[in-house]
Amino acid sequence: MQFSSESVEGLVEQLTKLPSIGRKTAQRLAAFVLKMPRAEVVEIAEALIAVKDRVRECTICHNVTDRNPCVICRAPRRDRSTICVVEDANDVLAIERTGEYRGVYHVLGGVISPLNGIGPEDLRIRELMRRLVSADDIPDDVPGTNGSATPPEDVDAEAEAIIEAHQAAAVEEIILAVNPNVEGDTTAYYISQLVNPLEVSVTRIARGLPIGGDLEYADEATLSRALEGRGSL
Amino acid sequence: MQFSSESVEGLVEQLTKLPSIGRKTAQRLAAFVLKMPRAEVVEIAEALIAVKDRVRECTICHNVTDRNPCVICRAPRRDRSTICVVEDANDVLAIERTGEYRGVYHVLGGVISPLNGIGPEDLRIRELMRRLVSADDIPDDVPGTNGSATPPEDVDAEAEAIIEAHQAAAVEEIILAVNPNVEGDTTAYYISQLVNPLEVSVTRIARGLPIGGDLEYADEATLSRALEGRGSL
Repeated sequence: MQFSSESVEGLVEQLTKLPSIGRKTAQRLAAFVLKMPRAEVVEIAEALIAVKDRVRECTICHNVTDRNPCVICRAPRRDRSTICVVEDANDVLAIERTGEYRGVYHVLGGVISPLNGIGPEDLRIRELMRRLVSADDIPDDVPGTNGSATPPEDVDAEAEAIIEAHQAAAVEEIILAVNPNVEGDTTAYYISQLVNPLEVSVTRIARGLPIGGDLEYADEATLSRALEGRGSL
Repeated sequence: MQFSSESVEGLVEQLTKLPSIGRKTAQRLAAFVLKMPRAEVVEIAEALIAVKDRVRECTICHNVTDRNPCVICRAPRRDRSTICVVEDANDVLAIERTGEYRGVYHVLGGVISPLNGIGPEDLRIRELMRRLVSADDIPDDVPGTNGSATPPEDVDAEAEAIIEAHQAAAVEEIILAVNPNVEGDTTAYYISQLVNPLEVSVTRIARGLPIGGDLEYADEATLSRALEGRGSL
């Protein structure tokens, strides 16, 4: 059943393309948009386009940013000897939210997932290696390219200096903050095999019972992992 | 905590303006938009603007439409002697979905709600009266205007003929399909007081136990209303 307006129906169809928005939700949103002032609707539409037109990738950490390098890589007080490796920009956000982490990031752009046809060559693994050793020292079997020799067009002298400073910083630790599932495990194992020969320690964030969780209702896998990862008091 | 891209952050803020979209959902949507092809994002943005630019109100029933009068009012096989009075366009959709109703609609644009400062003068009640009797026969104390004497600009000769045909049709029944709550009750009572003196029957859709509902768990108000509204078998 359709609205008697094709435009409203068109908006409903467009909105259902987005994740977690079904037809009912889309109809409710469309009805709301109908009542919104035109200027506000234009703002939403412009924000959508701006994301496609203005957002680029940080040359250093590959996080989303409007200004390359991103604010985290630019910040002089972030500890450049620690790199937290995450799947995507949302994970950066989640870790920043804790307010606990002072290092920098490396966004892989996915995890190894043979079922979805995603292999190491689709991720920014060679770019990660490039942050640890000089391009010549990366084994040839590491997938990916060494990146363009010349920096990207939108990088000015100041940005170039920041990129060089990152490259010069000695990395001491790689923290793998991938999800605790098969894809995350595979990705973590793959990266640890590459990085272990170098003088860089590789750690992975702890898996165990969530805070406020209940031992009685925990699944076996979580509980096994929590036991295995027990620490002294 | 914010994305390191102002554009992404801007989109998140814009999306949270919409109902039932909180910050977390907006972040997930923004991350999805980042990965969408630009053309698809432009389609969504254009659909949003189209709703504001192309959607108008049907002169007859006040439903949303791209072409005035709306498809329902244009349909020659719809029974113009029965008018179903609803709060908004979503309710038209809900009733059309049943596939049971063959009459036409009248969209009030809200319900009487003193708490929200909405009185009868804010609804299309005089416009409803206008569909039942000639403008001269509407009591002066009915709020609202008689509408402009000349039809709206976007109406051509064909549309004008349809509007006149609706005006000429003798309305036999007004079905009040307002929600079963205080505002709906008030609105239903107000309209029934206006329409009862005319030779038009006024009915209201039944309130009772929902299909698949359980008598044991029904609230008292619903159960009282279901008892009160019992019908013979």
